[in-house]
Amino acid sequence: MTHLPCLPELRVLGLSGLPEVAPGDDLAELIAAAVRRAGLTIQAGDVFVVTHKIVSKAEGQLVRLAEVEPSPLAERWSIPFGKDPRLFELALRAARRIVRMDRGVLIAETPHGFVCANAGVDSSNIADEGAALLPEDPDESARRLCIGLRGAFGQPVAVIISDSFGRAWREGQVNVAVGVAGLRPIVDYRGREDVHGHRLQATAIAIADELASAAELVMGKMDAIPVALIKGARYEPGEGSARELVRTADQDLFR
Amino acid sequence: MTHLPCLPELRVLGLSGLPEVAPGDDLAELIAAAVRRAGLTIQAGDVFVVTHKIVSKAEGQLVRLAEVEPSPLAERWSIPFGKDPRLFELALRAARRIVRMDRGVLIAETPHGFVCANAGVDSSNIADEGAALLPEDPDESARRLCIGLRGAFGQPVAVIISDSFGRAWREGQVNVAVGVAGLRPIVDYRGREDVHGHRLQATAIAIADELASAAELVMGKMDAIPVALIKGARYEPGEGSARELVRTADQDLFR
Repeated sequence: MTHLPCLPELRVLGLSGLPEVAPGDDLAELIAAAVRRAGLTIQAGDVFVVTHKIVSKAEGQLVRLAEVEPSPLAERWSIPFGKDPRLFELALRAARRIVRMDRGVLIAETPHGFVCANAGVDSSNIADEGAALLPEDPDESARRLCIGLRGAFGQPVAVIISDSFGRAWREGQVNVAVGVAGLRPIVDYRGREDVHGHRLQATAIAIADELASAAELVMGKMDAIPVALIKGARYEPGEGSARELVRTADQDLFR
Repeated sequence: MTHLPCLPELRVLGLSGLPEVAPGDDLAELIAAAVRRAGLTIQAGDVFVVTHKIVSKAEGQLVRLAEVEPSPLAERWSIPFGKDPRLFELALRAARRIVRMDRGVLIAETPHGFVCANAGVDSSNIADEGAALLPEDPDESARRLCIGLRGAFGQPVAVIISDSFGRAWREGQVNVAVGVAGLRPIVDYRGREDVHGHRLQATAIAIADELASAAELVMGKMDAIPVALIKGARYEPGEGSARELVRTADQDLFR
């Protein structure tokens, strides 16, 4: 019995060399320049995973903590836990609904529908005692980036904007997709047959989240590498939206 | 201003050509043979991600549905939703605690501490109307595989056993680690300083889950590719355990 080797391969490349991003910057241009400096060739189907933080910076979604006046609730909640009440105030302002508020942790639903700690407000890797909010419309940010990068390279590429979210039940954060352009974020295998001829019952895979997680492995957390380029990913091209990754409240048993 | 290109790269290779796995098979030997047939070189630090299903098959963690007598609870719960009461019975037997039971969905805690649909009981890609249970001790399964693969290749490799789990709040499943050997599954950045000199507050990344997710992207769901080989992953070697990825009940706001 012989087996022909047939090895699907995914390559995930971390892209360094971007300058510090400032409000108003053309992110597609900065990324394209970094790709060219690195001598990389962009092919049809390549996926760019971009950390939300540089998108938020380019879009001016930054707040200086010195300008934030915390509410009494923010002070009462954060000070006993040794946390900054101004960050907590920003989280309350960014939230659409508080899902859990317990043991010094705030899990909130954002206007996009994401459920995450502090409604996505993030103070790491921001200069001048500032905090970054999530982009207002991360799908639209992804779409603009996708158009810019397709223009720069003349190839149909896809874009994922990523953030690190905690999970219920499991320790540690993983990168997930908060904005998507150019790919269907979920592959649905329901109704297909497995190798034994049984119909698969309930298997839909969130490949946009898996691509974001794969990208994190080369990005690391210290943000010298805010962009990853993924080659060889199999996905269905399409408009796509990170909203497809959000379980609606009426379907969610944990909201 | 010049930027030196410095591109970290991760490669994820799907390994095909394994035979159908049967109880008692030496999985390390089967995987090593497939690696050699594919002409791949194994280097220090390579990570093997192995789908739990072939581990369960090799360990005989299979049940024939014809031999399962569903309880009244299993019948009452599954029949109105058009589901197989025997599968549901297996899920009840595999569970340590029912977390949610609503709208035809059973979310249960396994004896390992994992919270997942149907306590990890899985009927896809199993011959003869059977179902696969999770390995009894997936860390120990990973440890044995790791020893076997280190012996076969003479290199310090790591092993992750993966399964596809659903998540709270987000649609679609992603691959996560249910067994780990040879690597620390979580990288803890807390206390380190970001590029602006601020101490990172609460960032621990579940890289074992991210590696499992990256592997899924080449494995697909139809199980022709039950093993992925990851090259270039940065991780801290160590004994490791998937139990480190389980949030303990007293720390969990959603159990």
